[in-house]
Amino acid sequence: MKLNIALLPGDGIGPDVVVQAVKSLQAVADAFGHTFHFEEALVGAIAIDKTGDPLPEETLAVCKKSDAVLFGAIGDPKYDNDPKAKVRPEQGLLKLRKSLGLFTNIRPIKAYPTLIEKSPLKKDIISGTDFTIYRELTGGIYFGEKKISEDGTIASDLCEYSEAEIERIAHLAFKATRSRKNKLTLVDKANVLETSRLWRRVVTTIGKSYPDVELDFLFVDNAAMQIILNPSQFDVILTENMFGDIISDEGSVIGGSIGLLASASVGSDIAMFEPIHGSYPQAKGKDIANPVASILSAAMLLEHFNLKEEAETIQYAVEKSLEKGVVTPDLDKNSTYGTNKVGDFIADFILHAE
Amino acid sequence: MKLNIALLPGDGIGPDVVVQAVKSLQAVADAFGHTFHFEEALVGAIAIDKTGDPLPEETLAVCKKSDAVLFGAIGDPKYDNDPKAKVRPEQGLLKLRKSLGLFTNIRPIKAYPTLIEKSPLKKDIISGTDFTIYRELTGGIYFGEKKISEDGTIASDLCEYSEAEIERIAHLAFKATRSRKNKLTLVDKANVLETSRLWRRVVTTIGKSYPDVELDFLFVDNAAMQIILNPSQFDVILTENMFGDIISDEGSVIGGSIGLLASASVGSDIAMFEPIHGSYPQAKGKDIANPVASILSAAMLLEHFNLKEEAETIQYAVEKSLEKGVVTPDLDKNSTYGTNKVGDFIADFILHAE
Ligand SMILES: [Mg+2]
Ligand SMILES: [Mg+2]
Repeated sequence: MKLNIALLPGDGIGPDVVVQAVKSLQAVADAFGHTFHFEEALVGAIAIDKTGDPLPEETLAVCKKSDAVLFGAIGDPKYDNDPKAKVRPEQGLLKLRKSLGLFTNIRPIKAYPTLIEKSPLKKDIISGTDFTIYRELTGGIYFGEKKISEDGTIASDLCEYSEAEIERIAHLAFKATRSRKNKLTLVDKANVLETSRLWRRVVTTIGKSYPDVELDFLFVDNAAMQIILNPSQFDVILTENMFGDIISDEGSVIGGSIGLLASASVGSDIAMFEPIHGSYPQAKGKDIANPVASILSAAMLLEHFNLKEEAETIQYAVEKSLEKGVVTPDLDKNSTYGTNKVGDFIADFILHAE
Repeated sequence: MKLNIALLPGDGIGPDVVVQAVKSLQAVADAFGHTFHFEEALVGAIAIDKTGDPLPEETLAVCKKSDAVLFGAIGDPKYDNDPKAKVRPEQGLLKLRKSLGLFTNIRPIKAYPTLIEKSPLKKDIISGTDFTIYRELTGGIYFGEKKISEDGTIASDLCEYSEAEIERIAHLAFKATRSRKNKLTLVDKANVLETSRLWRRVVTTIGKSYPDVELDFLFVDNAAMQIILNPSQFDVILTENMFGDIISDEGSVIGGSIGLLASASVGSDIAMFEPIHGSYPQAKGKDIANPVASILSAAMLLEHFNLKEEAETIQYAVEKSLEKGVVTPDLDKNSTYGTNKVGDFIADFILHAE
């Protein structure tokens, strides 16, 4: 397969980790006979520095002619700590998501057996946890009409959803269960919210076309409890934007290793893949950033193009690196491996495993 | 002090536990020379059975002439599992909250050293956790305008807050920190929501009248992570209705003993105190329900009337019962103590400790 991949390393440790993901992708290309063509572009603080714009037109053009985008991280204290800053790095990411129509955020959450002692949860609770959250990303209260009264004493935010917005993500989530455990949990607050009742109605109807998928429902407050009490019960969780924000961040910490978590943002056309961690500017260029989340984001990219064996090869190489203790200091403070060596190990393993 | 206390035992295990709370209150009255007058009234499924109304006028009248309400639990499968039921037990609770103008829900969350091994979190994480959540209870998206388009394809919910709604609960929360660790954390989503920005502005302004209180801010998605990663950092959390629903339910499970958690709902006049657990109808009348949450609700009632030593005496007696293993089977499956014996031990200890 030929793939054109736009690389947007961004700020802080973004460039440090994206280069390692590219190594793994190149190894997959060599091992499986694919051709991946990479084109780099500016985004975030570095783009503001060089062009004044956190998402220059040229970058958007590079993304739009690509098949997928591999994103690093965004954010720099120079702008974040300046309340007067008119352009902010984050605007680049938001504009990019919008321009590419990325309406679904996908976040796999997995407890790696070798890292289980790092979890804040007890071993018997976190063991076996392996689920994915499908969060609606462009609708709901974050994007609804905002009002503030003239005298500034009454404020409001509108949460709105249409059938069509729910349908498109619901199909993605139902399909995703089929390569997993065939179980979908809709998280909502249908006992109180009209939008949640619409979600429940639409998802129930769509569920009839997926008779092999077990569908259940959980109120968001209960979901927030269940993620702590019994996270291994979940397979795929589907939810609206704000609930997804809260639930997926809650879920991100239960494995104890946020530096490993990848994500995908998917729309009708070009998809984007990125680690969930931030730009961590203090670690920039120090060869200490954990490249695994970025490498697993590359695996999600391959999965997106149905290159399942290729994706699994990366995932397996990552698991081997964890098992053998070839990890950055965030996972083992006595480790002498840096970002580069971990990236090399994983890429070598991919080639070697074939 | 003379107090008129309305007792609303309600359904399921409600009556089983309320009677134990009354024992403790009576013990406090005897030990400290107070006079508590109790008057019982119907609410919930039992009220529907006897009067057709989950909150009969007479019950509301009893509450309104009291100084405080001690509530048990509500809900019965007879109504909950009948989709055609026109009156539901829960309506009684909602109407009562509304009638009494209870705009603040208060939920203390505490890790009891003797129960720490029951927590889903690791010991070093849960140890020392002791915080209280102040949740706004009558505003926000749960009560805002709900719409559904005529063809049923677009739904919306409005989240609205006024300065006045925020001010009244903010004062309660700031004051509460003063008998604790003088720290208030506002949980919001001010980077996205207009209502959250109003909360932040109003709370910041009010904070100037409480210069001794340290005020900080946390986005709700981050709060959902911090409750798992580092719950002992919190003292008092203040938040809006829906965030409070999610965060307080999440917080309720980290201690590992939901059967111990009490709550208060406070307005401008009569306050109500109740365990957070439900009516658990399967255990009704079996002498196995844990009475501690109800007993600690009685302690919150005393605290509300500034009877601090009295409240602490109850709390201390509860801690002793836990320490000595005088607990119901939910906390120790080998325990031979029932609801009554635990209630007796705590009441005796209150009298005896004096
Ligand atoms: Mg978030
Ligand atoms: Mg709740």
